[in-house]
Amino acid sequence: MGSADPASRYAAAGVDRSRAAEAVARVAELAASTWLPPVMAGIGPFAAVWRLPANLPPEAVLVSSTDSVGTKTKLAVALGSHRGIGRDIVNHCVNDVLTTGAEPLFFLDYFATGRIDPAVLSDLAEGMASACREAGCSLVGGETAEMPGVYGIGDYDLAGFLVGMTSARDLLGPALVRPGDLLLGLPSSGLHTNGFSLVRHLVAELDLDLGAIAPGTERPLGELLLEPHRSYLDPVRQIRRLGGLHALAHITGGGIVENLPRVLDDSLAARVDRSTWSVPGVFSALQGWGGVSDEEMWRTFNMGVGMVCLLAPEAAAAAQAALGDDCFLMGEVAERSGPDRVVLS
Amino acid sequence: MGSADPASRYAAAGVDRSRAAEAVARVAELAASTWLPPVMAGIGPFAAVWRLPANLPPEAVLVSSTDSVGTKTKLAVALGSHRGIGRDIVNHCVNDVLTTGAEPLFFLDYFATGRIDPAVLSDLAEGMASACREAGCSLVGGETAEMPGVYGIGDYDLAGFLVGMTSARDLLGPALVRPGDLLLGLPSSGLHTNGFSLVRHLVAELDLDLGAIAPGTERPLGELLLEPHRSYLDPVRQIRRLGGLHALAHITGGGIVENLPRVLDDSLAARVDRSTWSVPGVFSALQGWGGVSDEEMWRTFNMGVGMVCLLAPEAAAAAQAALGDDCFLMGEVAERSGPDRVVLS
Repeated sequence: MGSADPASRYAAAGVDRSRAAEAVARVAELAASTWLPPVMAGIGPFAAVWRLPANLPPEAVLVSSTDSVGTKTKLAVALGSHRGIGRDIVNHCVNDVLTTGAEPLFFLDYFATGRIDPAVLSDLAEGMASACREAGCSLVGGETAEMPGVYGIGDYDLAGFLVGMTSARDLLGPALVRPGDLLLGLPSSGLHTNGFSLVRHLVAELDLDLGAIAPGTERPLGELLLEPHRSYLDPVRQIRRLGGLHALAHITGGGIVENLPRVLDDSLAARVDRSTWSVPGVFSALQGWGGVSDEEMWRTFNMGVGMVCLLAPEAAAAAQAALGDDCFLMGEVAERSGPDRVVLS
Repeated sequence: MGSADPASRYAAAGVDRSRAAEAVARVAELAASTWLPPVMAGIGPFAAVWRLPANLPPEAVLVSSTDSVGTKTKLAVALGSHRGIGRDIVNHCVNDVLTTGAEPLFFLDYFATGRIDPAVLSDLAEGMASACREAGCSLVGGETAEMPGVYGIGDYDLAGFLVGMTSARDLLGPALVRPGDLLLGLPSSGLHTNGFSLVRHLVAELDLDLGAIAPGTERPLGELLLEPHRSYLDPVRQIRRLGGLHALAHITGGGIVENLPRVLDDSLAARVDRSTWSVPGVFSALQGWGGVSDEEMWRTFNMGVGMVCLLAPEAAAAAQAALGDDCFLMGEVAERSGPDRVVLS
């Protein structure tokens, strides 16, 4: 890889350069639009170089995460809409790193396809660059692999890798969570990047019209499904400033049921009251069409909650006042009394 | 992703957990075998946490790179041999980061497949973990995505992300390279991770027997082709200690012809004397069978040179004395007098 020399982006992958040249130039330009002063461009064409600040936080730690957008790419290919996928991968990584309390520093992408389509790559790069700029995160490098025989001609996969930083003293996580802590839900913007294997199955099986407006929704189904994964950087920053934040659960594959336990130690359970928010219409529509069981729905989709903040009880009111409609109190942490680590009511 | 909680590795990808459980446990165990003290395990299950040392180098910089093993995976699938692919991805990233002079700190992998095969994932993880341990690099996390419809059932892709560190004062690169610098080649261990689309084409077209021993070689063709990408960490450390190292070109896709210019500014050219080393038999055999032109061979394969060190002339003798047979003087840097940035003779 190599962010410093745009041409080098493709060197390692054996890509046909003449065909990819248009996309390369555009990707490099977009990446450069995200570069903050710590990026030392032009130093190492085989790797990106990022200068650590002179004033590091005490006991500084680097926080890293890697993710992919999964089979949401298939839907994007079917609808010819890729910009949001670029936003998806960056925001997914931002949110994962954010769960420790870290702020994003730099991002790298891995894009693999059967045959590079410059327009698709450019759209993805636009999405990634816009999300990186919004997160104050520099898109410092990437790898583009053309792998005929592994990927179909139009198919692609997009993974991301993000490094952030915080202080070991400020790390959020299960060690801080106590019985009585409150669960503050932050709404999702849609399905985010999870559940698309089930969605694709339903779309194919039921021959769903992606251009039609589903019951209980106001936009075409395809648009709703592709709505990008939102970033929780801003609301989480606001809550942190107010104090009392103990942990954050990013609700990805496995839904609330499988992701909340990741920030609870074995002695604790989360009680979630589902009457405290409205499940968005797109989930209800999918469930109704497919006759999907409640259990499968709640283990597959975020059901309208993209991030759960675990807060000291005295901190919740201030957080709610700061965020207004962009949050809801959805339950609490208690001593665990049975096998379930998340009790839905 | 989440290295701290093994189960969480699969949470984001919607993987069938019962089938993947065996592989998950093994991958987590192998990853943990690479953890050095800076890894703060169990803190943030959505992201890995790595503690920066108290004594950072002056003007510390983070160096990052992402790579994939490309279509070498297809050959590994055909031969049912995956451990080396795990070593490939780590060493490829180590070598890229090394070109700046940085030492590796931590690594994350991205594995995507049509359907998880626990034995394959375990072999890959063994290879990654062994290469990480040898590099003093902690395998802190990964993402495993099961994407039916994007990947064929047996197919997979493996990408890696590596972060290293050095001082801005010690960065290697084009800015240090001068006319008269010597090129010291470090032998490759085989094809490394490049040229496999051409190899697969030749294997299919000519119906090559991967079990047969090719002319001029001593091992079965399949084994030679899958030989893992070696790491240049040890020889480069030795050379650095002696002083006079200006830049390193990792010879990946595009070969010597396209990778040497990545460490030369526009005013310079590299003169490479091909009589200074013997091209390994596997390359000659492929060329002979396929009737591949010299030009295509030298632009596709490393031809026996995996890393080129650009050294001050007075430093070359000591480097050669230290490395013995594991290097060869292969040319020099000169003022550029024509269109070619690499002149092969």
